[in-house]
Amino acid sequence: MGFSQDNLKGFVLALSSSAFIGASFIIKKKGLRRAAAASGARAGSYIGQLNNISFCMVSHIVIVGEVANFVAYAFAPAVLVTPLGALSIIVSAVLAHFILNEKLHQLGILGCVMCIAGSIVIVIHAPQERPITSVQEIWSMATQPAFLLYVGSVIVLVFILIFHFAPQCGHSNVLVFTGICSFMGSLSVMSVKAVGTALKLTFEGNNQLLYPETWFFVFIVATCVITQMNYLNKALDTFNTAVVSPIYYVMFTSLTILASVIMFKDWDGQNVGSIISEICGFIVVLSGTIVLHTTREFERSSSFRGSYASLSPPLSARLCNGNGEFMKHEEENLLPDEAVFFQRQEMH
Amino acid sequence: MGFSQDNLKGFVLALSSSAFIGASFIIKKKGLRRAAAASGARAGSYIGQLNNISFCMVSHIVIVGEVANFVAYAFAPAVLVTPLGALSIIVSAVLAHFILNEKLHQLGILGCVMCIAGSIVIVIHAPQERPITSVQEIWSMATQPAFLLYVGSVIVLVFILIFHFAPQCGHSNVLVFTGICSFMGSLSVMSVKAVGTALKLTFEGNNQLLYPETWFFVFIVATCVITQMNYLNKALDTFNTAVVSPIYYVMFTSLTILASVIMFKDWDGQNVGSIISEICGFIVVLSGTIVLHTTREFERSSSFRGSYASLSPPLSARLCNGNGEFMKHEEENLLPDEAVFFQRQEMH
Repeated sequence: MGFSQDNLKGFVLALSSSAFIGASFIIKKKGLRRAAAASGARAGSYIGQLNNISFCMVSHIVIVGEVANFVAYAFAPAVLVTPLGALSIIVSAVLAHFILNEKLHQLGILGCVMCIAGSIVIVIHAPQERPITSVQEIWSMATQPAFLLYVGSVIVLVFILIFHFAPQCGHSNVLVFTGICSFMGSLSVMSVKAVGTALKLTFEGNNQLLYPETWFFVFIVATCVITQMNYLNKALDTFNTAVVSPIYYVMFTSLTILASVIMFKDWDGQNVGSIISEICGFIVVLSGTIVLHTTREFERSSSFRGSYASLSPPLSARLCNGNGEFMKHEEENLLPDEAVFFQRQEMH
Repeated sequence: MGFSQDNLKGFVLALSSSAFIGASFIIKKKGLRRAAAASGARAGSYIGQLNNISFCMVSHIVIVGEVANFVAYAFAPAVLVTPLGALSIIVSAVLAHFILNEKLHQLGILGCVMCIAGSIVIVIHAPQERPITSVQEIWSMATQPAFLLYVGSVIVLVFILIFHFAPQCGHSNVLVFTGICSFMGSLSVMSVKAVGTALKLTFEGNNQLLYPETWFFVFIVATCVITQMNYLNKALDTFNTAVVSPIYYVMFTSLTILASVIMFKDWDGQNVGSIISEICGFIVVLSGTIVLHTTREFERSSSFRGSYASLSPPLSARLCNGNGEFMKHEEENLLPDEAVFFQRQEMH
């Protein structure tokens, strides 16, 4: 198995990140339900009543989860950390079953089992994180021709999507906004990994904050995350969360793995069997999430997330549009008719 | 990957076996449809009209498929060959989509993708077949204490199931008849493997037919297969094929893997990662088949099969109950209302 100490740390961090994010949705939903019961009214009218304690708690849990995910990238390869983001939907599905009494469908259980089986395969075959000793090392990786070609292509494609396709068919084709998010997301994860590694080295006594490269990566993180969140919100405002989430997950995770394989050469020195197993594991996790999405009410689909940089929809919504937007998504999630309708659409 | 020549042969044989079995169902169904169109009547009345040419063709294809599966066991470990039996439902699902115009549901496609991904993981991590030079070697494996304990437990359990549970709840609990089939199935695969290896050695010039052990294994194959087919028919007569098939598949495959691991020590010398990957692969294939079963009409579920010894339901039905029974299953499969009803039952 060759599971290194650092990979284990990254794995545990990614896992606990998913647990926090998954749990945050349950707490939020429970708070909203309690508020609804107190007011005896429909979602729309009690939104203002969700007390600040619940709200603060949820925000803190989400932040803890995102920080754990951020740190995970400093220890383990993106090929390992990114696909594990899907486990947050299992956590929220299982917790919803026990705490909110939302019956988990038989196929939903199967979806969870698949996500776990696929994640185990990914974890077993994940490559070892290469030891990095300075931010300059990351800089040289980021400026190698192959990765510059990737970055160049991404920037060109994102510009085409933003300026040509977004005005034309952004509101009719779900791939436009999610595509922009996913392309930017792959770059944010790479820069998050650079910043995370720099911080890790700094904490170990090898100060990396003196180098301009570190601050350049911080600037890239900020730019990418803001663009990504902006278009993620547009996607969520235009399309149903249950449609956006799986598409976003597959595009974001695939592109991040591609970027990581080019930049960090994750697959160099791995045998063909391991690489194929990893890809199969990823396909299985993806299939599991789709099965889970198709069979559960879509309320929990907003807990779908990929990485620190992508930020889970509610937090990103809150950061961009303020409290009202954060609530908007919650309210949307509480309409059972729409959920059932969507479920049927998928079924037939 | 360490994929040996013999494993490759076994893999190709298992694959083509699945292709033949899967295709046979499509040809049969097409023949029945043509007969139905010619008579312009409902399934019940045109059953006698399925022409003998179609019938012979189907029988031959099934026999070729079963022989390929039989030979596969002589080359590759049961841990590799048995789970690949599930691929026959993919073949029949895909062929039905293109030839019979039976629309494959989106989740059904996902089920196929999962089966393929899981099978790839299994194939990559399958252990190498140990070289066996005589039937006595297999005999000593079969008489080792651990395997004798397994055989003893299986016989006791099968007797309890047949004489205690079958009269009491055989017609109300699906696990009784399928349990008997699965336990006996694991023993038939082990003896089929012994006979297959003996034949392989004989063809290589090392005659094994002189030894009584070979004939003992032949006797065991016959006994197990007859018992197994008898109770498989009882299970299919009592319960819906779509209920029996996945349960039978998981029990039969799990017990066969267990028996093979005990008798042939398939997992000795494999690292923990490979074994866990194999188990995950098996879980994924299983999940994929359930998803496919849940979403497709159950007509093709009778194409579900495990091994040579288990024989696919129609052939076994034909062998045991004659032509009429063979047609009975086909007729049952043509009732769309029941299929839709069943599908709904699973969905909600």
